Amino acid sequence: MMRKAVVLLSGGLDSTVTLAIALDEGKDVTAISFRYGQRHTKELKSAEAVCNHYGVGHSIIDIDLSSFRSALTDKAFDIPSDREGRLEEQIPITYVPARNIIFLSIAAGLCESIGADSIYIGANAVDYSGYPDCRPEFFRSFREMLAKGTKTGVDGSAIEVMTPIIDLTKADIVRMGKELNAPLELTWSCYNGGERACGHCDSCRLRIRGFEEAGYRDEIEYG
Amino acid sequence: MMRKAVVLLSGGLDSTVTLAIALDEGKDVTAISFRYGQRHTKELKSAEAVCNHYGVGHSIIDIDLSSFRSALTDKAFDIPSDREGRLEEQIPITYVPARNIIFLSIAAGLCESIGADSIYIGANAVDYSGYPDCRPEFFRSFREMLAKGTKTGVDGSAIEVMTPIIDLTKADIVRMGKELNAPLELTWSCYNGGERACGHCDSCRLRIRGFEEAGYRDEIEYG
Repeated sequence: MMRKAVVLLSGGLDSTVTLAIALDEGKDVTAISFRYGQRHTKELKSAEAVCNHYGVGHSIIDIDLSSFRSALTDKAFDIPSDREGRLEEQIPITYVPARNIIFLSIAAGLCESIGADSIYIGANAVDYSGYPDCRPEFFRSFREMLAKGTKTGVDGSAIEVMTPIIDLTKADIVRMGKELNAPLELTWSCYNGGERACGHCDSCRLRIRGFEEAGYRDEIEYG
Repeated sequence: MMRKAVVLLSGGLDSTVTLAIALDEGKDVTAISFRYGQRHTKELKSAEAVCNHYGVGHSIIDIDLSSFRSALTDKAFDIPSDREGRLEEQIPITYVPARNIIFLSIAAGLCESIGADSIYIGANAVDYSGYPDCRPEFFRSFREMLAKGTKTGVDGSAIEVMTPIIDLTKADIVRMGKELNAPLELTWSCYNGGERACGHCDSCRLRIRGFEEAGYRDEIEYG
């Protein structure tokens, strides 16, 4: 029997490639996405399109985190763009308090509900080194916590937290996605929610540079 | 300046006494409750009444966990009642997968947002020894995970997880609540959501026995 896995799917490039990897590893995948007070829901539409492409189950969880102050959810903040500073900062302004912790926790609950024994998350420690909850030591610690605090953990088979792209550069991720025939053209990376990706925000710039370095054409539209 | 704390408040006896303890310890309290697909919302109304009583801020987070199978949220299950078996079972049927993990994670996000440095949770290892996420070793592990995965943790001051009633019997909890003048008459413990508490479910029976053993009159109505 195929082993079940829950994949955290934002609809961006990284999580879509992570989903492709889980499927390539033979997992019976259920994707989980969150409507948590983002500025826009373009990513969620991309997540749905990716799930339809692969024919995998998709659970969208509504959770109102809009009261958590942060640049990504508070419209009073400006999104950083066209500045080199962000990656050097200790904690970027786009940090949403405990976001990965919250999302992994809900994914763990879904795992216990459906009998899945792993969570795949497209965290990346290369581009997001300033985020505490994107570092390998955090994921190890989270897995240990699950071993103590869940039914399956107590029964001796704690849920695994899989971070298959954590050490990859954006170019590596693009290459991996292309090798696995992942539908990268369906993904959305831009921090803004316009008709087309802006091409200027940090997320767009990382993506554009990744495709360039990997030697592939990015089929989404910019501008 | 008073130190800020987030208190997980279900509206039941245990969490209300925990809130009273946090206030008694001089904390500037924000309470957090969850609307997560419970069978009834009597507890939430109690939580609001308790917050109004104390004049503390109250954040109610909507999160749809109704897709997680369990007796408390799935109306197809029967709630265990008038059976002695539950407390002896390894994992009770009322276990909601990863519920405390999810609630603590969201509370941690709220802590980071408002600058609180502790979470108070009314977990109890005496009556709920079968729940993996009610055990002291789980809370220690959760705190270690927060030290790795949050901004404040990385900055060297991880959020504390306070479990002041974890080793108390129900009678001890009633006594503590009475000593602190906590509004126990506003709390709701019954698993069912009728006009009055049923008096027969496990939760009612634990409460009734607790008041009896403590030598206090329970001022809520049963029957």
